[in-house]
Amino acid sequence: MVDTYIVHGAVRSSAAYRVRIVMKLKGLAYREIFLDLAGGDQNKEDYRAVNPQGLVPALVCSDGAVLNQSMAIIEYLDDMHAEVPVMPRDARGRARVRALSQMVACDIHPINNMRVRNHIRDLFPGDPDAVANWMEIWSKAGFDALEARLASDTETGRFCHGDTPTMADACLVPQVANARLSQRDLSPYPTILRIAEACEALPAFVAARPDKQV
Amino acid sequence: MVDTYIVHGAVRSSAAYRVRIVMKLKGLAYREIFLDLAGGDQNKEDYRAVNPQGLVPALVCSDGAVLNQSMAIIEYLDDMHAEVPVMPRDARGRARVRALSQMVACDIHPINNMRVRNHIRDLFPGDPDAVANWMEIWSKAGFDALEARLASDTETGRFCHGDTPTMADACLVPQVANARLSQRDLSPYPTILRIAEACEALPAFVAARPDKQV
Repeated sequence: MVDTYIVHGAVRSSAAYRVRIVMKLKGLAYREIFLDLAGGDQNKEDYRAVNPQGLVPALVCSDGAVLNQSMAIIEYLDDMHAEVPVMPRDARGRARVRALSQMVACDIHPINNMRVRNHIRDLFPGDPDAVANWMEIWSKAGFDALEARLASDTETGRFCHGDTPTMADACLVPQVANARLSQRDLSPYPTILRIAEACEALPAFVAARPDKQV
Repeated sequence: MVDTYIVHGAVRSSAAYRVRIVMKLKGLAYREIFLDLAGGDQNKEDYRAVNPQGLVPALVCSDGAVLNQSMAIIEYLDDMHAEVPVMPRDARGRARVRALSQMVACDIHPINNMRVRNHIRDLFPGDPDAVANWMEIWSKAGFDALEARLASDTETGRFCHGDTPTMADACLVPQVANARLSQRDLSPYPTILRIAEACEALPAFVAARPDKQV
């Protein structure tokens, strides 16, 4: 198997998980280097030389070019490998898929990711629930909004947008997995759950799961 | 002037400011409805009917379709109005512009926006510096990473990507404006400052400024 792409990722990074889903959906050849985020690999000099932001994922192309930011990487892969598209062909559809993706990748995930959670933990050393309470607020706000959109939009199909998986599903499924890890009650989100289950029935989504990376 | 588009925005929203910059760069006909975010307009039932997420901006098209999320809106406008493009034509360039935009719109802005600032204020009622300290951490992390990328990448030109403004500049300038409002020291960021100044010399960026909306 030719290593066309190298992904600097992490088993527990939901942003790396998004990219992995799209790699698997498209059947692309890649190798993922798993950073130990809890151990601080992302802050070491050799990774900062790859991605000065110190966040995962980063995609290294066969010519050595490095791309960062999961949604930018996913759209690049879609531009370069048009088979099994993960973006709609029409401008309205693309806007909707981007918006749904950004409702996860801008408005839930960055507020709840590891660097912020660690900071909240340090701000409230005496409160064992501080991090969980923090995550619940932003996760609930985001899931409420996503459920409202997905449940009411006529473009919602078997998946977030129509009947084939898109970038929006690649963003949604890792966020649902995070919510389950935190044992959050997802029963108020029947549309999100139905879509996540449809995704998780697909081999590409199964192969991308964190527990399949170890 | 025909109101082709209606933007639900806010004078002090940097996400609405991004969309305004692109509207002005492209010379599009639009009308902005300014929500009073401090007064809670975004949580009122009539706005939630437009955008269930209760965030600005939202774009209403002439056929009544509503788009949300500023980067999705900007790329939609670029798809529909190709004159004065704000996205590169090549896949690598688009990936870079999206990544730079997301470094602002995912990794700085959502952690520091009003709903999170208000929550931090409420968590630390006795600490007048709590919000400023919070903002400084995430703003510094984001600006450090952006400066490193912009200063080292050969694709950086007069603007974030080459010599014409792109979505990345439309994201960067409002974030710089926010940093100035907070009286942050931006001297460690000479490339960011140089690009922001190049942008701010353009009439479209001037016309989009918050102080020009009142």
